[in-house]
Amino acid sequence: MDIKSKFSDRVKHLEGSAIREMFKLMAKPGIISFAGGSPDSSLFPAKELADIAQEILSKKGPLALQYGITEGYQPLRDWVTDRLSKQEIVGENDDTIIISGGQQGIDLAAKSLINEGDAVICENPSFIGGLNSFRSYNAELIGVDVKNDGIDTDQLEEVLKAHRNVKVLYTIPTFQNPSGITMSVEKRRKLLELAEKYDFIIFEDNPYGELRFSGEPVPTIKSLDKGGRVVYFGSFSKILSPGMRIGHATADSDLINRMVICKQVQDVHTPVLTQMICHEYVTRYSIDEHIKESCRIYGEKCEYMMKLMDELFPKCVEHTRPQGGIFLFCTMPEGVDSKELLKAAIDKNVAFVPGATTMVDEHKIYSSFRLNYSMASFEQIEQGIKVLAEVLNEALN
Amino acid sequence: MDIKSKFSDRVKHLEGSAIREMFKLMAKPGIISFAGGSPDSSLFPAKELADIAQEILSKKGPLALQYGITEGYQPLRDWVTDRLSKQEIVGENDDTIIISGGQQGIDLAAKSLINEGDAVICENPSFIGGLNSFRSYNAELIGVDVKNDGIDTDQLEEVLKAHRNVKVLYTIPTFQNPSGITMSVEKRRKLLELAEKYDFIIFEDNPYGELRFSGEPVPTIKSLDKGGRVVYFGSFSKILSPGMRIGHATADSDLINRMVICKQVQDVHTPVLTQMICHEYVTRYSIDEHIKESCRIYGEKCEYMMKLMDELFPKCVEHTRPQGGIFLFCTMPEGVDSKELLKAAIDKNVAFVPGATTMVDEHKIYSSFRLNYSMASFEQIEQGIKVLAEVLNEALN
Repeated sequence: MDIKSKFSDRVKHLEGSAIREMFKLMAKPGIISFAGGSPDSSLFPAKELADIAQEILSKKGPLALQYGITEGYQPLRDWVTDRLSKQEIVGENDDTIIISGGQQGIDLAAKSLINEGDAVICENPSFIGGLNSFRSYNAELIGVDVKNDGIDTDQLEEVLKAHRNVKVLYTIPTFQNPSGITMSVEKRRKLLELAEKYDFIIFEDNPYGELRFSGEPVPTIKSLDKGGRVVYFGSFSKILSPGMRIGHATADSDLINRMVICKQVQDVHTPVLTQMICHEYVTRYSIDEHIKESCRIYGEKCEYMMKLMDELFPKCVEHTRPQGGIFLFCTMPEGVDSKELLKAAIDKNVAFVPGATTMVDEHKIYSSFRLNYSMASFEQIEQGIKVLAEVLNEALN
Repeated sequence: MDIKSKFSDRVKHLEGSAIREMFKLMAKPGIISFAGGSPDSSLFPAKELADIAQEILSKKGPLALQYGITEGYQPLRDWVTDRLSKQEIVGENDDTIIISGGQQGIDLAAKSLINEGDAVICENPSFIGGLNSFRSYNAELIGVDVKNDGIDTDQLEEVLKAHRNVKVLYTIPTFQNPSGITMSVEKRRKLLELAEKYDFIIFEDNPYGELRFSGEPVPTIKSLDKGGRVVYFGSFSKILSPGMRIGHATADSDLINRMVICKQVQDVHTPVLTQMICHEYVTRYSIDEHIKESCRIYGEKCEYMMKLMDELFPKCVEHTRPQGGIFLFCTMPEGVDSKELLKAAIDKNVAFVPGATTMVDEHKIYSSFRLNYSMASFEQIEQGIKVLAEVLNEALN
């Protein structure tokens, strides 16, 4: 039997995440990868987590190893709710659940809200995991450009006037993936206004928000929302450990209820053991101190990478200047294909994410590419940027 | 904004799993629950897992806490593939991936194959998690009765003649949830024949298959399949720990590839830490010895529960006689509503799963109910069955 003939319409045309494919390349020995979105693994509090895991399994094994409830391990859920409440993220009618990484939140909310043919407005560029989730529910994806202060709200309003089927706008407003750009508070307010006027829902994906290493904090869109229009996704992936797959979602409790039903059929619940480990870590230690240390390192790495780029890259290559997060975004002169550049770079053992994989229309030619500065060491950053500079000089001369 | 008005068609009418809701009831102190599907938590090798977790996080923290690949932690994937190969489950064109519990496999395969309006044939009764996954993709569910030797294949063929939109048949052929019934090898062969004749795919869900405590083993449908028509789901939930959420799926590699793309947008990957713990446990210790011990306990518990039921229940209440797994199924005289019985039982602090929640048409009245014998202690089984006998005697007199 040809199984391909049986594929559903929703997955028939999906392509695997180029970023996930990158993980396979990263396994190639000797490669310097700016392609992933991984935190610096030397920051993981492995020793502390080892002791915590030992204690939990010894003393509370039957709880840690048994089925749990779909909404999440209650003490962790309470801790997250409390923290988000202090950040004014939890509205009066809201509920918060623990999910298997922030990605799951996007997918559960998409499944709960998007019908075939509904339009989802995405920042262009955006996070491939978000884009692919919407694609997998046969949404119509509409890209809106990202300026230096966030999504182009004028272009957005034009799109909203032209498309009356917009149900969701997906944004990573703070230290955006892939651009590293942070949306201004004015634009956040404007987004909420437009959501009200054109009756759509905002997905605010905020995995990097706490990783600010310079500049002033900007309030989350969720904290500014009075109309219950924002679905908020947070994560422990970038501030503690991605391999544990723990995130959280906050939204109107009626929507959370639907998302919980969808989570029941996806994975029943997030593993109890990892949730307990996470909860014990954040109660026993200061996550804020840990975040502070991560910010210090990422700030230094970002600074170092930008300094090298400014010295070595051809002047026609522009890049963003993030105040936090783990990515920056480069743009070569129009018409240069960053996919071709990637091939040349991989030949010299350096990897990055080409712009195309971050775009709503992934089949056009883009001159942009994403660099991650959190995972590589300072030495690797130096070596990798030098190689990239060579590759760029060759390509652009 | 009324968020309910925005719900997608696929989730609008979904109801939460009554079984999951039961977990909340189970938290009520003093209740004896035959409702869940949990293994006996005294069987968990918590001490061994505690030491393993400690070691992994101390020695391989950066690996255990970092992002992993979607397909699963390679050593665990290899171990599972090897074990399944010995059971002749892995076909020539097949691939095997690690998933976040067997449930995720059902959902990924459903998402990859089922279009709105495609029909899925389900055993009636069946596992609510499977049924709800199919419902969440707007499949048409068609129930086929389960006899003492498995699905009614005559009725099945009638259904297949009448419905040309059948894409998938979902079965739990061994120690079925909820009935405890095992499908005969003749019927397994017949299913494959019908799949070939009527061109559909078989989802073989086998979380309980290794938990045989009496009778002779029956080959899996997957091992009998020559046409690449079976998608096989297995799990560590019932043989090691459900809270770790580790399962596996085996199917044609083209389908697995689609499922991997869907998994990328669901949870990126199953937590690396729990996969590493699981792998270390199965390589350091004998999972077969552990399974043998589980079978011994479950066999004794099942025997004990049946003995009490045969002594105390009204004679008009029939029950299945499982040779393995963790469930048995009772049927009262037609017309008696097991949901009403549940209310009376919960008043007296005993819980079970009413038949309605296991049926394709959940809104009819069913006189059947499911009892789980793995989780309760022998004392609780005695006490709970005595109470149930009282409730039954009251209801049926």
